[in-house]
Amino acid sequence: MSFRPLHDRVVVRRVDSESKTAGGIIIPDTAKEKPSEGVIVSVGAGARDESGKIVPLDVKAGDRVLFGKWSGTEVKVGGEDLLIMKESDIMGVIEG
Amino acid sequence: MSFRPLHDRVVVRRVDSESKTAGGIIIPDTAKEKPSEGVIVSVGAGARDESGKIVPLDVKAGDRVLFGKWSGTEVKVGGEDLLIMKESDIMGVIEG
Amino acid sequence: MSFRPLHDRVVVRRVDSESKTAGGIIIPDTAKEKPSEGVIVSVGAGARDESGKIVPLDVKAGDRVLFGKWSGTEVKVGGEDLLIMKESDIMGVIEG
Amino acid sequence: MSFRPLHDRVVVRRVDSESKTAGGIIIPDTAKEKPSEGVIVSVGAGARDESGKIVPLDVKAGDRVLFGKWSGTEVKVGGEDLLIMKESDIMGVIEG
Amino acid sequence: MSFRPLHDRVVVRRVDSESKTAGGIIIPDTAKEKPSEGVIVSVGAGARDESGKIVPLDVKAGDRVLFGKWSGTEVKVGGEDLLIMKESDIMGVIEG
Amino acid sequence: MSFRPLHDRVVVRRVDSESKTAGGIIIPDTAKEKPSEGVIVSVGAGARDESGKIVPLDVKAGDRVLFGKWSGTEVKVGGEDLLIMKESDIMGVIEG
Amino acid sequence: MSFRPLHDRVVVRRVDSESKTAGGIIIPDTAKEKPSEGVIVSVGAGARDESGKIVPLDVKAGDRVLFGKWSGTEVKVGGEDLLIMKESDIMGVIEG
Repeated sequence: MSFRPLHDRVVVRRVDSESKTAGGIIIPDTAKEKPSEGVIVSVGAGARDESGKIVPLDVKAGDRVLFGKWSGTEVKVGGEDLLIMKESDIMGVIEG
Repeated sequence: MSFRPLHDRVVVRRVDSESKTAGGIIIPDTAKEKPSEGVIVSVGAGARDESGKIVPLDVKAGDRVLFGKWSGTEVKVGGEDLLIMKESDIMGVIEG
Repeated sequence: MSFRPLHDRVVVRRVDSESKTAGGIIIPDTAKEKPSEGVIVSVGAGARDESGKIVPLDVKAGDRVLFGKWSGTEVKVGGEDLLIMKESDIMGVIEG
Repeated sequence: MSFRPLHDRVVVRRVDSESKTAGGIIIPDTAKEKPSEGVIVSVGAGARDESGKIVPLDVKAGDRVLFGKWSGTEVKVGGEDLLIMKESDIMGVIEG
Repeated sequence: MSFRPLHDRVVVRRVDSESKTAGGIIIPDTAKEKPSEGVIVSVGAGARDESGKIVPLDVKAGDRVLFGKWSGTEVKVGGEDLLIMKESDIMGVIEG
Repeated sequence: MSFRPLHDRVVVRRVDSESKTAGGIIIPDTAKEKPSEGVIVSVGAGARDESGKIVPLDVKAGDRVLFGKWSGTEVKVGGEDLLIMKESDIMGVIEG
Repeated sequence: MSFRPLHDRVVVRRVDSESKTAGGIIIPDTAKEKPSEGVIVSVGAGARDESGKIVPLDVKAGDRVLFGKWSGTEVKVGGEDLLIMKESDIMGVIEG
């Protein structure tokens, strides 16, 4: 069973603290607007531009991303806690 | 007797708790914005893009979908409780 | 004497309770936003899209429709109570 | 001396109560948003669409129209009380 | 010395009460939103439409116009009190 | 060292009171929204229109301009007090 | 490890006070809206215009820029304090 997000929505698995320590991105506690870290699980086909053409998303399943702490809607799919959000809530991709 | 939604509206039958247990999607009680689960009953022909061309919807009758808990307007058609909402209120489709 | 609505406006005759019982659509009393039922009396020629072309309406005189309870402006034309509203206030058409 | 409204503005002469009784449109006192009745005196050349082309108005001098009670700006031209408003404030045309 | 307004701005000289009595436009004291009368002194080259093309203004130097009482910014150019405003603040042109 | 404003931003040097007396523009103390006078120091390359084409600005370095009193952000570049603002904050150009 | 900002976002390293003294830009303490100085670390591929085409950014890695004091989200990448913001938060580039 899976969940296919519509349009420009993505499904994200929040990365917990231990795995985050292994990575190189640290969000300072004093940050005004603390972003969260996660992994893209699935992406929508893209929203349509003004001429009605579908614009594919810039992120893909497997990307490690930062997103706003309060972004997204929580759901549990197949026993896993996931977040549904819009691609515009994703700030960028952690690489390397 | 049936109800034909206009433009980018869809008619959704909310799925009750028992049938939801059979599926694999669980909405945690602690979710900030709890989505609801339902089945698409009928869809509008689509809204028009800026050039006046009709853009068909990305969901079809029979799709199992998640939508915002407070989305839609309740009506009873042929004795059945249904919701009329816009496609943009649909977060995605449960598949498989 | 008649009233020709401009652009994307329509004129609607609200259907009273008895005739509604004969139909199959029941609006539950507990609905958050109760829609009303009515019949389209006349429709405007349509609004213009961005390129200046007129887009005809998706409803026509005689259609039975649902619309938001607080939609429209009340007028009396030829002794009859009617409502003037925009097509976007119409949720859909009851068919069959 | 006359007044040429700019763009999509129109000049309207409000119809007083006696002449209104002669017509067939009655605005119920209980109406939530009571429209007023008037006659178009002059119309602007039209607003421009996105591509810069002028779109002529759908009303013409002499049309009997309904408009929102609080629409328009009052002026006195040649001793006559008139209203300047946008065409979008006009709900429709009384015909026949 | 002169002042060249940018884009869709115009420079207007407010007409004082005496010269207004000579004309035929009287603004009733009871008007909800009292317009003012003035003469266009200079006009901008026009704003650009969406495709980047300049759309010239519909008023020209010398036009007698009505505008909203609170429209514009007061400046003194060459000893004269003038107003800088957008063309959209101009309701129309007094002719004849 | 210089400062290159981005897009439709301009850098303005506020003109002080003495040099303003020499000019012909006087801003009355009673003005509701008092504009300020200045000289354009540098301009951005222009913002992009909807089709992605860059639209050059209508002001150039050296232009004497009026702008809203509260417009812009103050910076000191090379010991000089300057303002960074958008071209839309510029009301017009003083000529002659 | 690096961070690839999405769309029209940029990553900026705030310049501390000592290195700023060496430069020629001073932000007065009395400024209404004090801008900050920084260096661009990486830039997104650009946002899409209305026709769906990607518009590259006007800043590049290494540019010294001014930006609004409250702009951006703080993150720590590889031990370094950085800010993620939109290109529109960048006022301009310090050159020479």
